[in-house]
Amino acid sequence: MTVLVFLDPDHENGRVADASKPQLMATDQGVTRGDGIFETMLAVDGTPRKLSAHLARLAASAEAMDLVIPPAPAWERAIATALAEHPPATELVVRLLVTRGVEGAGTPTAWVQASAPGTSGRQQRETGIEVLLLDRGYDSSVAERAPWLLLGAKTLSYAVNMAALRYAKKQGADDVIFTSSDGRVLEGPTSTVLIATVRDGVKTLTTPLLESGVLPGTSQGALFKTAAEAGWHLGYGPLEPHDLFEADAVWLVSSIRLMAPVRSIDGKEIPVSRELTEELTALLVKGSRD
Amino acid sequence: MTVLVFLDPDHENGRVADASKPQLMATDQGVTRGDGIFETMLAVDGTPRKLSAHLARLAASAEAMDLVIPPAPAWERAIATALAEHPPATELVVRLLVTRGVEGAGTPTAWVQASAPGTSGRQQRETGIEVLLLDRGYDSSVAERAPWLLLGAKTLSYAVNMAALRYAKKQGADDVIFTSSDGRVLEGPTSTVLIATVRDGVKTLTTPLLESGVLPGTSQGALFKTAAEAGWHLGYGPLEPHDLFEADAVWLVSSIRLMAPVRSIDGKEIPVSRELTEELTALLVKGSRD
Repeated sequence: MTVLVFLDPDHENGRVADASKPQLMATDQGVTRGDGIFETMLAVDGTPRKLSAHLARLAASAEAMDLVIPPAPAWERAIATALAEHPPATELVVRLLVTRGVEGAGTPTAWVQASAPGTSGRQQRETGIEVLLLDRGYDSSVAERAPWLLLGAKTLSYAVNMAALRYAKKQGADDVIFTSSDGRVLEGPTSTVLIATVRDGVKTLTTPLLESGVLPGTSQGALFKTAAEAGWHLGYGPLEPHDLFEADAVWLVSSIRLMAPVRSIDGKEIPVSRELTEELTALLVKGSRD
Repeated sequence: MTVLVFLDPDHENGRVADASKPQLMATDQGVTRGDGIFETMLAVDGTPRKLSAHLARLAASAEAMDLVIPPAPAWERAIATALAEHPPATELVVRLLVTRGVEGAGTPTAWVQASAPGTSGRQQRETGIEVLLLDRGYDSSVAERAPWLLLGAKTLSYAVNMAALRYAKKQGADDVIFTSSDGRVLEGPTSTVLIATVRDGVKTLTTPLLESGVLPGTSQGALFKTAAEAGWHLGYGPLEPHDLFEADAVWLVSSIRLMAPVRSIDGKEIPVSRELTEELTALLVKGSRD
């Protein structure tokens, strides 16, 4: 089942709505223009993971979009309501969505959605994933000079991300790593790229440069904190495709699927390390309790 | 008022729905992922203009998105229902929208929306518009090599287009002409670029190369047909910004606003020709009766 809770000034803890019935206006700019933002987080035993990181990124996305959204406490109360309304579950997916609302109304539409996770994430964590490198079309410097491209915002305009995933699946792959037109590794359509290298006993975890126009990953942020405490060296790109092939392990990391080990890129197998995946997943989970 | 008509196998002529009430599921991928396509057309005295061109482009967008949508006759009947349900009006805006539907359901959500046009289009036709050149981030060859970027599809993921318009308005401009990262003129966020040059009595109308990743404009297509019959020479780019400054007139053309004369680019005035605007608007209207 899906629980919906709308943020509503008349309902302090959010207004619970029937998810089996239409709840959105057909003229909402969220649907007519993909004009809105979102976050997806995992709740474990009723507690959202990385809540403050997700709320901070939601606020940053809103600012990039000139969207005035409800303050963090209103989200926290609505999330609590959604989790209380859902039958107890070990894991739930909690989505926060805000649109620019109905054209002309000047009021955003904001809601929380809680539902059970699909099975594919857990499976891909176990079996690993095959990815394709696909050109995102942008060069790695455009994000800084062209803020209207919204590269640092998590917007509802995900048609390209979904098309890239469909393209990969048609070729028999599971997921995508986007590259920039100048040959840098960027991110997955719904995930952050992480690579590990172990040289002379020194373990290094590297993620692409934020300035290259990737979304700041909340999971990468949580993991870097605890990995540093555990003795890992940390690196921020730039990364190029050869870095992926030369790494000791590569993952796509995200809030629901967690660390998904990449086992091939463009059909070429790369090393997978169950040991490193287990170590880093534990550190990620530890870093996600905030 | 807004009239909504959903395409529905149980209602041959479409199902009329109350636009003042929520009609969409909150889990529709149109809103959660901007995953869908649309068209916007003008109906004059109850008759849609360029209907077959809009339906053909909708079908092309659907194909680019791997989206199976209702066939043209179903759209035609739903449009007729929407226009019959709306109080008579000289001009109405008719929108066609299709989303990938609720996640997992496998059925697209498709509807027609009819409403009165805003006043700004008519005003901008009269007064002309000030535009900014903004980098779209893509080079002009990416559309052909990266179909997952959906550059030829009119998707619901319009957040960047809307952000570019907001950016322009904050700088005091009215609209935007996107350029490619390799310096070509592309298109407006919701319009096609057209330039006219008159040399030694030869009148030439030029639009950017389709292959550079712009959306094929239905208005440009209609106008080119009748303009050729009226003796105009036609050209397809590539165009660069200097071509805009050297032209005898520049327009952003679209289905509702029609020919909007550009009177300045990046704050620099360019020639405006009331005579050419009137001549080409008449040819556009003539070409739009299909």
